[in-house]
This record gives sequence, structure tokens and C-alpha cells, in this order.
Amino acid sequence: MTNSNSVDLAQFGQQAKAASFALAQLSSVQKSALLSTISQRLTENSAAILAANAIDIAQAKDNGLTDALIDRLLLDESRLAGIIADIDNVIKLDDPVGKESESKLLDNGLRLSRRSVPLGVIGVIYEARPNVTVDIAALALKTGNAVILRGGKETINSNIALSDVIRQALQQHDLPGDAVQLITSPDRALVTQLLKMDQYVDMIIPRGGQNLQRLCAEQATIPVILGGIGICHLYLDKAADLTRAAEVIINAKVQRPTVCNALDTLLIHKNIAQQYLPQIGQQLREQGVTLVACTDSQKILLMSGIECDEADEQSYSTEWLSLTLGVKVVDDMANAIEHIRQHSSGHSEAILTDNLSAATEFMNQVDSSAVYVNASTRFTDGAQFGLGAEVAVSTQKLHARGPMALEALTTYKWLAWGDYTARS
Amino acid sequence: MTNSNSVDLAQFGQQAKAASFALAQLSSVQKSALLSTISQRLTENSAAILAANAIDIAQAKDNGLTDALIDRLLLDESRLAGIIADIDNVIKLDDPVGKESESKLLDNGLRLSRRSVPLGVIGVIYEARPNVTVDIAALALKTGNAVILRGGKETINSNIALSDVIRQALQQHDLPGDAVQLITSPDRALVTQLLKMDQYVDMIIPRGGQNLQRLCAEQATIPVILGGIGICHLYLDKAADLTRAAEVIINAKVQRPTVCNALDTLLIHKNIAQQYLPQIGQQLREQGVTLVACTDSQKILLMSGIECDEADEQSYSTEWLSLTLGVKVVDDMANAIEHIRQHSSGHSEAILTDNLSAATEFMNQVDSSAVYVNASTRFTDGAQFGLGAEVAVSTQKLHARGPMALEALTTYKWLAWGDYTARS
Repeated sequence: MTNSNSVDLAQFGQQAKAASFALAQLSSVQKSALLSTISQRLTENSAAILAANAIDIAQAKDNGLTDALIDRLLLDESRLAGIIADIDNVIKLDDPVGKESESKLLDNGLRLSRRSVPLGVIGVIYEARPNVTVDIAALALKTGNAVILRGGKETINSNIALSDVIRQALQQHDLPGDAVQLITSPDRALVTQLLKMDQYVDMIIPRGGQNLQRLCAEQATIPVILGGIGICHLYLDKAADLTRAAEVIINAKVQRPTVCNALDTLLIHKNIAQQYLPQIGQQLREQGVTLVACTDSQKILLMSGIECDEADEQSYSTEWLSLTLGVKVVDDMANAIEHIRQHSSGHSEAILTDNLSAATEFMNQVDSSAVYVNASTRFTDGAQFGLGAEVAVSTQKLHARGPMALEALTTYKWLAWGDYTARS
Repeated sequence: MTNSNSVDLAQFGQQAKAASFALAQLSSVQKSALLSTISQRLTENSAAILAANAIDIAQAKDNGLTDALIDRLLLDESRLAGIIADIDNVIKLDDPVGKESESKLLDNGLRLSRRSVPLGVIGVIYEARPNVTVDIAALALKTGNAVILRGGKETINSNIALSDVIRQALQQHDLPGDAVQLITSPDRALVTQLLKMDQYVDMIIPRGGQNLQRLCAEQATIPVILGGIGICHLYLDKAADLTRAAEVIINAKVQRPTVCNALDTLLIHKNIAQQYLPQIGQQLREQGVTLVACTDSQKILLMSGIECDEADEQSYSTEWLSLTLGVKVVDDMANAIEHIRQHSSGHSEAILTDNLSAATEFMNQVDSSAVYVNASTRFTDGAQFGLGAEVAVSTQKLHARGPMALEALTTYKWLAWGDYTARS
């Protein structure tokens, strides 16, 4: 095993930084060859990987984890094949490193250009799923970055097995195995330490819930990409086609309620609430949705015999991640936009309307990573946006916003050629 | 006076956020008109502004500040005219807001595009110079952003006078004066509080020394653009044209030694050290430069009767900001690159060589915001790079690197038009 349990994290950082310099010099062809080797070695070592995962699963059962959580931890042949297939997809993606832009000959005589280069070392803190280990390593290596991984303790054996295979593949290509490092100790103090290693780590990506995001925002001295928290809104305008609206609303809430782009709050124009709320309320109830309603909407729903709970102050600031939906009647679109500004996490918002001027205003006024007209919030996703890969979904505004593709794992440097040129 | 001395910073944040929504809707024409009014009103109010500055200057003298520092605080008619002229230049720049890119019709039926939008609210913490108040406000307003300014206490009266004029101009255009807020209280706890107002502030720009940068990195929960610290290197390769090299080396060190892109360490290939160090050492000494030399270079310099100090561990990790220069003999370019990786702040590095392969390798291997072949490090600057405006010089890798232009004050949002489209 290449990953020690007693960790000198600063050494991890140093090694990763040193490895990043080697990775940054690789051509696209060399990086593809490396990823092919990883893919091949994962296939060859699948029995050992599944055996390691079986230990994690047995421990999870011993620890009384829920079936749902155990299912998230589980690797089987088909899931592992899926993970390997994802690497093959990453290989096919365009390498964003080495592109030059803004090339110009300046008046001062310099020939200047801006070249995209790897970020360097990326720290990723994530929760249970073992596929993230391979996924993130592949995306980082594709873009010439080293990674320091901190996965959940529930999949530690799987993660060790997976990262060992990746490190062996690196060594097979005469590259430093330290380009992919796994923190195996469950000591939570190491997370805080990682967040402060700004001399070695260039970016932190937390892939997990609100507590992890908050910890990173508060403790990190390294730039953090916050994301993955979606308090998403859909505003049903008075000019919406109500016959067609239901499919979108139900899709946004029900298709996959546990993810960040699922709908959290339905805002409905007061002119259509009386007519439409009973109908959509009924349809949502049939899909198993619990409605949490404002006073006005509650009155309408209860009068039609549709069960609902009363919203309190927290309801509209909650990412439900379940079949629960906040409902609120608004006086007009301005009111809806105001509500969104107050409660949104800046992830995804939608308007349903046939009024083009309302649609345009909503697009202009709502400031979230993705804003939709007549579409489900569920589309906020790298694959759906045609970006090829998704590193994370950023809800902050610096560097990358919304679904982050490979480009978000790069930075740039300015290159200037002179002829013994001094500044006058 | 519109700025209160007893500050409810959260209220500042709320007001700035609310103002930012109004600014984000302005067209380029409207923003230019606003900036013209600011320029005009600054001219009209110049007597009052200079009177306010006179109070700052008198207090600075009372407090025994150095002449150099007092000169930094001073506004006179010609400096104020310069500040106003800068606004006129900002008006002429291209507005980066509202550009759409990556427009495409997706297989899922959505019409997607990525639109550049203002960041929202920018917090700027800066030191003595009063021109920064106007400069940053103009750049922020040009890009539709609100700002919360925290200037140095030494120029508080000047800053109040300047920001009052700007707020009046905003109001004249029926825009919220709160788009430009000035924290007037000298209480340092407010800085820490500002750094944690992530619900209202989208980006922090610290324009000041190492201590301020460090404070921001450690305390902020808001993304920070670190920058302006330059430990800059020039590597003199054995294949350099030594006759032409001197001008560049002297320029990099001497032209303006107090700024971040001035040269801090000269690395010289061992094959030419014996021949060239006495010569360049002599020339640098004639320019008043203090040399801080490694053992090898010290030996060579002293043998030629050129005065120099001995470098210690800290010497090569120091941003001199003065007429001091570190000197070190290196075995080869790999050695030089290794030294740079260890000591650089990632700002600007240069190689002088006539060997194209050495130049290319240096460009590829050195990872700083700007890398030069045969040119002075002094070129790392927004105006020199032809970027029009310079918000700051970023030495971090996320969002913006090197000289930051107006574009760095924007983010983007994804806009998607569907036809009651659900995700399948």
C-alpha cells in the first residue's frame, strides 16, 4: 500500500507540488496514454477492487448504515465498468491545456500571449461514493494537475485500492505516483490542515453537504470552489401555458429529488393560484410530494382537500433533497424575483411563461448560475450542457459558475517575448 | 456627509447588494453617462476635495509621517486632474458585461448561452493613496458592480469628499448612492467583519502589503484576489548577449524599485559569473543598488572590489521594494528554475538568453503569472499589456492571473430557453 496511515500532510503537499511540475509538461498524447493505462489496470485489478469494496460494505453493515447509504458505497462489476467507461470518455475530451489566446505584438515591442496551463495541485474533499476517486483523478490528470484526495471513511478500503492502481499506472509511465495522493487517516483535523496548505495546494473542491462547504469557506486559506447546494425556484407566471406547465414542474421536483438541481420552491402568480394550485397540488401529491405552503396557498389547497403543511421561516431557505416542495403565492414577478434573491443559493431558477417580455426580464434580473425559461431546473449539469465532463457545480461567482468543465481545472500564464527589451 | 462613522456593516452589505441589482441592469450608455457625471462633478468640486485633502496632510504632518508617505497622500490640482482623466479613459474602454458566448442549441432542446454579468458587490481594502477610491469606484461602476471601500485612515477626509461626490452623481442618475459605500471608521475589527460578509459581498480585493494579503487569506469567507506581492527573478543564461543584458537587468531593478514587478533576485549561470558579475555589479552599484550575494557571487564581487552583503536564508524570500538586489550563481537553468519555484511569489520571472531552446524550456517550466524572454519584469502591468485598465495584479491562479482588467470584475450566468422542456 502506498498510502500511509500516519500522515505528514505537509509532505503530501510538497510531493504533490513536485509531481505537478512533471504533469504540467505532458502532451495531450502522453496524458491520454496514462489514462488508458489507468483504465486498463482498473479492469485487470477489478477483483481486488471489488474485494476491498466488500470490506467497506461489510463494515457499513456492521455499523448499521442505511440501505440507501450502503447502496451509495457499493461497487459491483457493472458499476466498476461504468467508472472505467467514464475514463474512456474523459480521454476523448478536448485537452484545454496549452491553448494560447490574446496573442498580440505590443507597442512596447513585446510579443505577448496568454497560455492555459494546469492549476497545479487540487485538493478534493468528498463523501461516500468511491467513483469520485477515479473520476476526479482522471479529470485532474487529463488537465495535468496533481490531486490530494480526502474521501469518506466509509469507502476507505475501496479508495485505497483504486488510488493504488492509479499510482501504479503513473509509475508505469515514469511519472511520480505522488501526483495522486489519498489521505487515508479519518482524523478530521487533517481536513482543516489541508485547507490551510496554500503553499502547496492551488484550489479546494469540496464535494459534499452544507457543513463541509461552510467548513471550507471558513477555514481555507486556499481558494475554494463552493457549490452543489441548490435552493432552486420555479416561478409560474400568470401567462404560462398551464396545460404544459405541469410536466415541467413535476419533472423539476420528482425526477431525481435528492440532487442539487431539483426544485425546492414553486412560486405561483396570484391570478392563477386559485385555478391551478389544486390541479398541480393534486398531481404532485400523486407523485408522493409533500407540500409546504404559505398561508394563501394553504387555504387554496385545503379547500380542495389537498393535504399540505404550513411553511415557517426556515421552509423557503431549505434545500429539501427529498420529495418535499415549498409553495408560495406571489403578487407579481417582481415579488417572485425578490423572493428568489432572498432565498436562492444561486444555483438554478426557472420561469414558466408565454410572455416574452416577462421571460426576458426574469433572465436579466435573476442572478443565479443557471436561469431557465420554460424548462426544468434539472438541466443544470455538465453533460446536459454539452460540456463533456463535470468537475462540480459552482454556486460562487469567481473562476467558474454553474457546471464546471475541464477548463475550470486550468489557469493561464502570460508569456512575453522581447529582444532585450526594457520598459521606458 | 453620507457616510456615518458608527457603522452597521451588515446594513452596508444589504444596501450594496440591493444597489448591485439596479446597476446590473444598466446599459453601457447609461454607465458611461454616470461616469461622465462623476468626472464632471469631481472637477466642479475640486476645491472642496483639495480642502479635505489638506486636512489629511496637516494631520499626517502632525503625526510625523515621512515626507515620502505624505507625498503619497497628497492631492493637488494636477493629480486630481489626472484622476479625472483616468475616468475619461475608463469610459472609453469596452464594457465586458452582456457578452454572450458558447451559444448552442442542445440535443435536449434547450437553447443555451453564457452571458457575462457583473460580479455584484466588491469589497476593496486599500492603503493610503486617495486616487484608489475614484479609480476602483469607476472600474466597478463601469462593470455594473457595487463597491464597499475601506481606505487608509490617513486619507479619510479625502476619501469621504471623493466618495460623496460619486454618491451624488449616482443619485443624480436616479441610482442608489449605496452602490459606492465607504467605511469611514478606523476600527480594524470592521475589516475582519467585512471579510466574512459572504451573504452580501462577492469578491474581496486587498490592495496592500503582505500583512493585509495574509489577513484576507486567513479570515475571509469571501473569495479573495491575492496579489501585488512580487518576488521577481531574472535568470541570466550562459547564452545571453551580455552586452545587451545590462540594460534589461538595470531596468528591472532600478526603473521603479518600490513596485511589485521590480526585480528581486538575479540568478546568473556559473559559466559567465566570473566574467560578467564584476561588470554588472559595478553598473548596479553606480545606480545605488545594494547587492546581497551568495557565497560564490560574493567572492567574485569582492575580488573586483565591489561592495556587497552576504545573503542569508531570508534574503531570497524577500520582496525588496527598494534598491536592493539578491544575487546568486546557479549551476544551470534547472537550478535556476528550482530556485524560482522555491522562492517566487508567482508574479513575474524572466530569462535572458539567445538560446531558443533554453528560452522555450524556461517559458514552459516556470509557472508564474508572467514569464519573459529577453525582457524586463517591469512589464507586468495592465497598461503595458494593452488591457486598458488594471484592477490589481493577481498572483493567485483562480479567476484571474497577472494584470486584471475589467473582465475580472465580471462573472457569467448560463441562460437556457426551452419550450416547456423536461429532462428525460
